Amino acid sequence: MTDFEQRCQSVASHFAENKVDVLLVASPANVRYLSGFDGSNGLILLTPSETHFFTDPRYATAAARYVSGKVHVAKGPLVNAATIVIKRKKLKKIGFEAAHTSVQASQRLKDGLPLGASLVPVVGLVEERRMVKSAVEIEKIRGSVRLNSEAYQRVIRRVRPGVRELDIAAEIEYQMKMLGAEKPAFDTIVAAKDRSALPHAHPTGYRLVGNELLLIDMGASLEGYSSDMTRTVHLGPPPKRIKQIYAAVLEAQLAGIDAVRPGATAGSVDRATRRTLKKYGMEKAFVHSTGHGLGLEIHEPPRLGKNDKTILAPGMAITIEPGVYLEGQGGIRIEDTVLVTSTGCEILTPTPKEFLSI
Amino acid sequence: MTDFEQRCQSVASHFAENKVDVLLVASPANVRYLSGFDGSNGLILLTPSETHFFTDPRYATAAARYVSGKVHVAKGPLVNAATIVIKRKKLKKIGFEAAHTSVQASQRLKDGLPLGASLVPVVGLVEERRMVKSAVEIEKIRGSVRLNSEAYQRVIRRVRPGVRELDIAAEIEYQMKMLGAEKPAFDTIVAAKDRSALPHAHPTGYRLVGNELLLIDMGASLEGYSSDMTRTVHLGPPPKRIKQIYAAVLEAQLAGIDAVRPGATAGSVDRATRRTLKKYGMEKAFVHSTGHGLGLEIHEPPRLGKNDKTILAPGMAITIEPGVYLEGQGGIRIEDTVLVTSTGCEILTPTPKEFLSI
Repeated sequence: MTDFEQRCQSVASHFAENKVDVLLVASPANVRYLSGFDGSNGLILLTPSETHFFTDPRYATAAARYVSGKVHVAKGPLVNAATIVIKRKKLKKIGFEAAHTSVQASQRLKDGLPLGASLVPVVGLVEERRMVKSAVEIEKIRGSVRLNSEAYQRVIRRVRPGVRELDIAAEIEYQMKMLGAEKPAFDTIVAAKDRSALPHAHPTGYRLVGNELLLIDMGASLEGYSSDMTRTVHLGPPPKRIKQIYAAVLEAQLAGIDAVRPGATAGSVDRATRRTLKKYGMEKAFVHSTGHGLGLEIHEPPRLGKNDKTILAPGMAITIEPGVYLEGQGGIRIEDTVLVTSTGCEILTPTPKEFLSI
Repeated sequence: MTDFEQRCQSVASHFAENKVDVLLVASPANVRYLSGFDGSNGLILLTPSETHFFTDPRYATAAARYVSGKVHVAKGPLVNAATIVIKRKKLKKIGFEAAHTSVQASQRLKDGLPLGASLVPVVGLVEERRMVKSAVEIEKIRGSVRLNSEAYQRVIRRVRPGVRELDIAAEIEYQMKMLGAEKPAFDTIVAAKDRSALPHAHPTGYRLVGNELLLIDMGASLEGYSSDMTRTVHLGPPPKRIKQIYAAVLEAQLAGIDAVRPGATAGSVDRATRRTLKKYGMEKAFVHSTGHGLGLEIHEPPRLGKNDKTILAPGMAITIEPGVYLEGQGGIRIEDTVLVTSTGCEILTPTPKEFLSI
């Protein structure tokens, strides 16, 4: 049995508890997980014994070559093609991904169903399977993380006053691709000075002048798998206050890593980083959650937020990324990708975390 | 009144015919169109007189700086925050974007609505407003198209046997960014030899050897606005058969451009390109539609497909991109971005279309 067939079978083994006979898989990442298809328009109808894959004519040749499952090429909305199979096979309880199916698509589906068939919303079934990575997936994430850190090293040593945020971002993404990545896993963040206080800043034409913070948040996609890393450096020797904030964020990040172990909840990791920042009176300046799972998507379950009850398990790949953001002054974030192991966790990101002054 | 306020007012002027009092705007491109917000998590509640914008704390500072409308920063699902405003203002008929709202989000909304309020699905209301571009938007598209062609010129002159598809794609995207683009508008396609027959091929590690087709489909995003261009070149002198196919595709592309005029339907442009390819017995090898609108999204209405009845109007920006794909042999596509004018159309793409042998 191939990896894809195994995954389909594992998902199908949960049909009974979800009260469905089949599942329509619409999320692109879930479709890729179950079939290998990496185009922009694919749909799967998963039965306990078969994987029906639907796409449009642009992908006919590619799908026939490498997609796992029975390929149907259709014109028009793919859900319409799926209802034809549903009718022919006389399927009744049709599960669909409620978080990834628009109201419009579900209405189309409903209109096309035969008498006696009904739609059943399903949430997170495939995503839950995806949380724990297989050995093959872990190798891909390792490769993606290594590549990402190598791209960072190549670029950071050439950063100096006079270059623009945009130049740095362009160079990072170029190096990723030259190292074999398909693309960045998300828009690279390069934010200098007070712009580092915007957690999701776009790079601008601002030219570095020296004596300022520089935050870089970057990730690569390699064979579909993501990496994610943030480093904050200082051009010139950092002032004392900035050093103190950096030390607090690093301490929080290490406390988060320390809290990662199988059996712990995702929420407990988030609380560990917050507790540390609270010691320094900085917890209010930490405006997002501590991290997130990553794999075929850059953000996938679990979410490492205060109240997340997901139990961490060996094979989960997650980020640990506390930050402190002071409007008008600047922000510092430190982020690694880590792997939950049977005894705790392994930090996959090899890039050093001492406060770098360049 | 600002551009954003004008756009909101124009959308709101269609509330009555859609039988809604307000509209929840969930599509990221529609949110950007109405508010300027370009982050990943935003929602608008548009009333006839107000724009309520919702986002999470990561974007609080950025939104306060540049988003048009009243900014609400919320933790958790944004629809929950929107229902609070709906209750306070005693709103009744709540329109929502059925094509951009998941079944899960609409259920959350429903659960949060006060007694007497109801959800009304709305499709395409903002997208229809977006089809005809304003003078400011046209200038941005012009800039994006120019930048894209300049990046192509910089790279194509350095293409030779020995380079990989991946190198070419990485160099194209690097040049785009150095010229000021935020990012590619889509994953750049660089497909050599028989891989050019896959309309949506990903670049691979394949090294050019010479005497082969090379298809490049690329677009930039500049200030949010897309460009889109495809050129197919031949390494070394092309065989006669390839020259014939190229000539047929170019004739089809020119016929498509010729059919673009205000008052014509989008479908008639598609039929014009197909008719030309049919003369040469190649219409079955043209497996996608003739083109699409572009703007804040790389694919937006109108779709230039056989049966599309959209009436073309001055200010629409569309692509014309017929192609012929022969499995195992190769594919040729030629694509320009054009602007519908009051008398016909203007080809925005400045890059020559003679068959280039390099």
